[in-house]
Amino acid sequence: MNEEAKKKLLRMIPHALYILTCKCEGKVAASTVSWVTQASFHPPLVVVGLKKETHTFEVVRHAQGFVLNFLGSGQKDLAQKFFKHVGPEGNLLGGEVFQDSPVLKHPIFPKMAGFIECRIIAMVEKGDHAVVVAEVLEAECGPLEGPLLISTTGWNYGG
Amino acid sequence: MNEEAKKKLLRMIPHALYILTCKCEGKVAASTVSWVTQASFHPPLVVVGLKKETHTFEVVRHAQGFVLNFLGSGQKDLAQKFFKHVGPEGNLLGGEVFQDSPVLKHPIFPKMAGFIECRIIAMVEKGDHAVVVAEVLEAECGPLEGPLLISTTGWNYGG
Repeated sequence: MNEEAKKKLLRMIPHALYILTCKCEGKVAASTVSWVTQASFHPPLVVVGLKKETHTFEVVRHAQGFVLNFLGSGQKDLAQKFFKHVGPEGNLLGGEVFQDSPVLKHPIFPKMAGFIECRIIAMVEKGDHAVVVAEVLEAECGPLEGPLLISTTGWNYGG
Repeated sequence: MNEEAKKKLLRMIPHALYILTCKCEGKVAASTVSWVTQASFHPPLVVVGLKKETHTFEVVRHAQGFVLNFLGSGQKDLAQKFFKHVGPEGNLLGGEVFQDSPVLKHPIFPKMAGFIECRIIAMVEKGDHAVVVAEVLEAECGPLEGPLLISTTGWNYGG
């Protein structure tokens, strides 16, 4: 394997940053994720690569659903807050106000570019991240313009 | 479902354009695809959303592998040639010279941004596109700068 070429090309795949949230049986999870693609029109499916052996993955697996919050293009600082596990404090998560999503009741952030509510329909667990295949059940736009592209942050996640 | 919000947000997910190629038992397939994400570091996995009921999908399913050719940022015209099935003519595919990839012997185009060779390890077929999960076996960079982002083409594929 040409490791340098693999790294360069996998980092050429464009990715944005999102806050994935989930609440299940009193446990709340919120993590920054970036490996996302659409995967079907009918039904509308998305795929998320979700790091295994994490609090967020365990809560999501139990809930069999999640919300993907689309960060605004200027919300790099907020993305950074959710690189590690952050618990809720009152109505705040990472210092940001959150509410319940309409269908699945997972946390949403009103001051972002929007969110999609997703129900998991399949999972492939053959790598260090799980391939989570999920149907979009509901969507709502927020006040900010997105996306927050990784390529604009100076960070890398991939390769 | 808020259909307008769903469309706007799913189109906010950044996607690039690639030529997916495959050769199996004398059949050659080459199609432009855009729904791609990385999905694991170890092993290196990618996910491709591949339209079902197409020649390319049938050849790829039979081969259980494919090559993802990364288009250069200026190769919009070439991307357009592979929206529909194109068969090989001599050593040309869509008018572009191709060769065999080193490991899996699928078509590669030397004058692009590079390619990755992929072996399928799982497939989820619950939508109009299949979720194809594949391990990267080999990679090589080409002479052009990529990616070709959909957002720069005026086209949409998603929503």
